[in-house]
Amino acid sequence: MIPTKEALQKAQETVQLYTHRTPVLTSGLIDELVGASVFFKCENFQKMGAFKMRGAVNKILSLSDAERGKGVVTHSSGNFGQAVALSAKMLGIPAYIVMPENAPQVKKNAVKGYGGIVTECPSTIEAREQETNRIQQETGATFMHPSNDIAVILGNSTAASELLEEYEDLDVLFAPVGGGGLIAGTALAAHYFGKNCSTIGGEPFAVDDAYRSLLSGQIEKNERTNTIADGLRTYLGDQNFPIIQQLVKKIIRVEEKEIVDAMQLIWERLKIVIEPSSAVAFAALLKNKEEFKDQKIGVIFSGGNIDVHNLPF
Amino acid sequence: MIPTKEALQKAQETVQLYTHRTPVLTSGLIDELVGASVFFKCENFQKMGAFKMRGAVNKILSLSDAERGKGVVTHSSGNFGQAVALSAKMLGIPAYIVMPENAPQVKKNAVKGYGGIVTECPSTIEAREQETNRIQQETGATFMHPSNDIAVILGNSTAASELLEEYEDLDVLFAPVGGGGLIAGTALAAHYFGKNCSTIGGEPFAVDDAYRSLLSGQIEKNERTNTIADGLRTYLGDQNFPIIQQLVKKIIRVEEKEIVDAMQLIWERLKIVIEPSSAVAFAALLKNKEEFKDQKIGVIFSGGNIDVHNLPF
Repeated sequence: MIPTKEALQKAQETVQLYTHRTPVLTSGLIDELVGASVFFKCENFQKMGAFKMRGAVNKILSLSDAERGKGVVTHSSGNFGQAVALSAKMLGIPAYIVMPENAPQVKKNAVKGYGGIVTECPSTIEAREQETNRIQQETGATFMHPSNDIAVILGNSTAASELLEEYEDLDVLFAPVGGGGLIAGTALAAHYFGKNCSTIGGEPFAVDDAYRSLLSGQIEKNERTNTIADGLRTYLGDQNFPIIQQLVKKIIRVEEKEIVDAMQLIWERLKIVIEPSSAVAFAALLKNKEEFKDQKIGVIFSGGNIDVHNLPF
Repeated sequence: MIPTKEALQKAQETVQLYTHRTPVLTSGLIDELVGASVFFKCENFQKMGAFKMRGAVNKILSLSDAERGKGVVTHSSGNFGQAVALSAKMLGIPAYIVMPENAPQVKKNAVKGYGGIVTECPSTIEAREQETNRIQQETGATFMHPSNDIAVILGNSTAASELLEEYEDLDVLFAPVGGGGLIAGTALAAHYFGKNCSTIGGEPFAVDDAYRSLLSGQIEKNERTNTIADGLRTYLGDQNFPIIQQLVKKIIRVEEKEIVDAMQLIWERLKIVIEPSSAVAFAALLKNKEEFKDQKIGVIFSGGNIDVHNLPF
């Protein structure tokens, strides 16, 4: 049972009130290079710099008034923590963000800057779950998962819905695959709002759990997480996996060098800052470009939050 | 005698046919930081990645048919060479670009990619002038100066003219100062199309020739050129200096670290790629922000052509 078209439409009506309608960029030179027409949906220009804002705000708005009043809690060292903090701030509720004590100070400051209440804990899965449980029990806050939640997936779908509103005859949509929340939302939008539009995921070879999950028919995990695409080091969940199985045509895996090269091409030619995870979907298109010759292709750039002191070039 | 309002209007009618109308970006966080409303005119999204396209195309179109037929020649290792090559290609005439033999291969390739006929010469002023003269004599091509030419200045003015069309009540416009072609054009647009809008230049301390020229009343040069803002290492000319003397309110000088910090802030917050020369104007605003409190401020980002393998972070 996948979410309905009406659920996606409702999410779009809601989410657009709290987020930017991000621009769609094109480049003649990139079209020439790919041999197709490529439309980049730029979630790097989204509030707090990533698509995660869409899922976070939609999830909070799906809660009852009583639930919302008690606030929300999540554990995150990345974009989702910032997205939850900013969404909660906009909606006037408390956000408790559990962060590993060794997270970069700049990330902690970003969450605090959006009004998040940061609790630090040792950098282990046990410690963060224990701390999150403690906060849930003490405050009654609702736990928010970054990707394995239908309300989050519906929120994420709105990026692709906007893109398809402007370019309704896209042949294929590319999105990166991490926890599965973005690719699942993208596939739903393509399914309901595209005209025979397929969805393809890009995933690093180094963390190809989703690729293997589609082959085996069960959720696979990663033994290592050594990819530059730090937003994609996680794995699928029971809420998004069935959607991905049903609606994602395939996943194309890319090498680390292909990710960096794709990122450099975007920086140099589009003159925009995207993070490595964003580049993975475009790297997948570049790698298999012969397959998509002369097609109209949408690519979702997931975000643009980078540390300029730690670039891969 | 400065160019007339009609001359600026004519330039805009012409230039807009061959260039992008670049977007104007804003950021709530940057407004908060500056204590003013800031509107960034993003010439990093211009064709070939810099405002130079505007001046180059306007200059070529100001030539007679007979002149145009023989082509154009310039010496450049930077953006202007690419702008001349691409403008000439669009207008179907030959462009001879003299480049120092030690220029980065990527720059030579960029000029060639736009159809420019590259001649390499030793990296001295004498050698490049000799080579340029030889080409002029052999081909009859017209020499194009990157900044000290009224047609180029009029072309450059169109970036600020567009910005003032969209935000007509700006109090002040900031632009970087290198050869003087951009700041002169910007000041002309502010003079004719602004409502009491002043123009302020940003210049690196390391190459503060324009600052000193305004003090002394004559064109000063630089003894050293050790600034990261490589587009600003040159000095003013007899065509743009009178315009700058008459219409530029002042020049604010900035340290190298202030340039890099301003560039980092733009990359991280606006998620766009700008080159160091672009950051100089914004660095000047940041430095003197108390002076511009609560005002409406336009900042011209000159371009976004960077070498990702050689970043200052």
